[in-house]
Amino acid sequence: MSLLVVGTMAFDDIETPFGKSGKIIGGSATYVAYAASNFVQPVQQVSIVGYDFPASELETLQQRGVATEGVEVVADKKSFYWSGKYHMDMNTRDTLVTDLNVLADFNPVVPESYQGAEFVMLGNLMPKLQKSVIQQLKKRPKLIVLDTMNFWMDTAMDDLKEVLTMVDVLLVNDSEARQLTGEFSLVKAARKILTMGPRYLIIKKGEHGALLFHENSVFFAPALPLEDVFDPTGAGDTFAGGFMGHLAKTQDISFENMKTAIIVGSAMASFCVERFGADRLKEITKADIDERLSEFVQLVNFDINLV
Amino acid sequence: MSLLVVGTMAFDDIETPFGKSGKIIGGSATYVAYAASNFVQPVQQVSIVGYDFPASELETLQQRGVATEGVEVVADKKSFYWSGKYHMDMNTRDTLVTDLNVLADFNPVVPESYQGAEFVMLGNLMPKLQKSVIQQLKKRPKLIVLDTMNFWMDTAMDDLKEVLTMVDVLLVNDSEARQLTGEFSLVKAARKILTMGPRYLIIKKGEHGALLFHENSVFFAPALPLEDVFDPTGAGDTFAGGFMGHLAKTQDISFENMKTAIIVGSAMASFCVERFGADRLKEITKADIDERLSEFVQLVNFDINLV
Repeated sequence: MSLLVVGTMAFDDIETPFGKSGKIIGGSATYVAYAASNFVQPVQQVSIVGYDFPASELETLQQRGVATEGVEVVADKKSFYWSGKYHMDMNTRDTLVTDLNVLADFNPVVPESYQGAEFVMLGNLMPKLQKSVIQQLKKRPKLIVLDTMNFWMDTAMDDLKEVLTMVDVLLVNDSEARQLTGEFSLVKAARKILTMGPRYLIIKKGEHGALLFHENSVFFAPALPLEDVFDPTGAGDTFAGGFMGHLAKTQDISFENMKTAIIVGSAMASFCVERFGADRLKEITKADIDERLSEFVQLVNFDINLV
Repeated sequence: MSLLVVGTMAFDDIETPFGKSGKIIGGSATYVAYAASNFVQPVQQVSIVGYDFPASELETLQQRGVATEGVEVVADKKSFYWSGKYHMDMNTRDTLVTDLNVLADFNPVVPESYQGAEFVMLGNLMPKLQKSVIQQLKKRPKLIVLDTMNFWMDTAMDDLKEVLTMVDVLLVNDSEARQLTGEFSLVKAARKILTMGPRYLIIKKGEHGALLFHENSVFFAPALPLEDVFDPTGAGDTFAGGFMGHLAKTQDISFENMKTAIIVGSAMASFCVERFGADRLKEITKADIDERLSEFVQLVNFDINLV
């Protein structure tokens, strides 16, 4: 019952209409680990950081059952750094600074101790690196989930299409689904993507929830209506972490259980956006998570009598 | 068990990325009537048309249990005419022509035969006219629902605020909720609106579904993911018609039953957008509606075990 996660661990510097974060810990693998470790341990992290990444942060993750043997620490380079500013609607943002630093040389290596992982989350990275991770796995995992972004569709579409044939679930947002297929209708886009490799497709729509497509079925999970979205950074990765965490915990990859996993992911994402960075994720308890899940049940539950 | 509907009956001329409708029948009261008459009869229509409005259209409505005694026919003026063109995303449109014609003199009169209606749907009109209808009702209806739009917030906010104190349910879209309250967060906007008169608030988000707020509770109904939205004209009014129709049929205005009514409204709206105008609404059967409702159950149904 282990979950292998490949992604970035980084510094973020975020400005929203509510304030400035200063330099804080971010990165896709960080958010996935904080979310997933509520449900499954160990979370086996594969990432890369520089000499400036605080050891205390790795220790905090270890205390949550996150294995960091696969996190390469580069002695003479800085960690990946991203700075951005959100607009009022929180759906759009401007990137102010992107310093790749160690990420420019990232060549993920799966440690021997991680072999046998049944669940694998490939965070948004160059498709060739995602493929290399899959090729390093000696036993085919039960479930491989891949996240990606429009940048790779612009610059490495052939590689992306190749790695898509190797995974079970694709996780994209609505505009990425459209770009990947050239279809405006998300239903048509989904149908095309399900012929490209993945058997399951999750389309994230931010504050408008998420859709799960599989064969001819579709499931919709809302986002929780929140008083304020304080900082959306990492919400998508936190969603992925909750989703994977629930699946790895239950060892059940049926469509029915994936629905539940998406609700769990949505609940975790609803915590993430309440504060800067992973601050909120670090403090929540199982009771908080259960209460939030109950809110989701209330949010969508209705009776209908087809007579 | 009657439903009184006040609104426009008109001609529309619509262009979407899928084609042009030519001059067809439209108007808020038309859509409400086509949707609601599946669930409740009579639907008591209060509207105004010109000499050019086809008698056959009124007859078709009558055959569906729609009373048209309250539809004033003006012998020397034309019917309200609107022409618009949708953009590719179908969420935005340009108005090409608005000819008010008879609508400029609309002074709705509730016929004696409509008195006693328990459910009243006040379609989007000048707030003073909506108020005048309420004042004509000798017995306070069980439920008064009001639709409005940003135009009245720009031009008649005081009148709108006054009529809001007289109704039970407000129906607006997300941008209207924001404009009415000056709050960007829909949760904060909802809280404010629930102090302005209505005890229930429905925020329509088009393809992103609808939210129902009441006291401290919130319910979310998704829109059905459709392969194509052919023509969104009238979807909001059709939603309102399904919502009111279900409530009037069941005579139950509890929060729990309003949830179901919103799902019924969403199902009716999902038919409306499949063709130009009310074409699709004219042909659907009870079996079609039940099947669509089952799809909504499938769409949001999930199991969660909080152990």
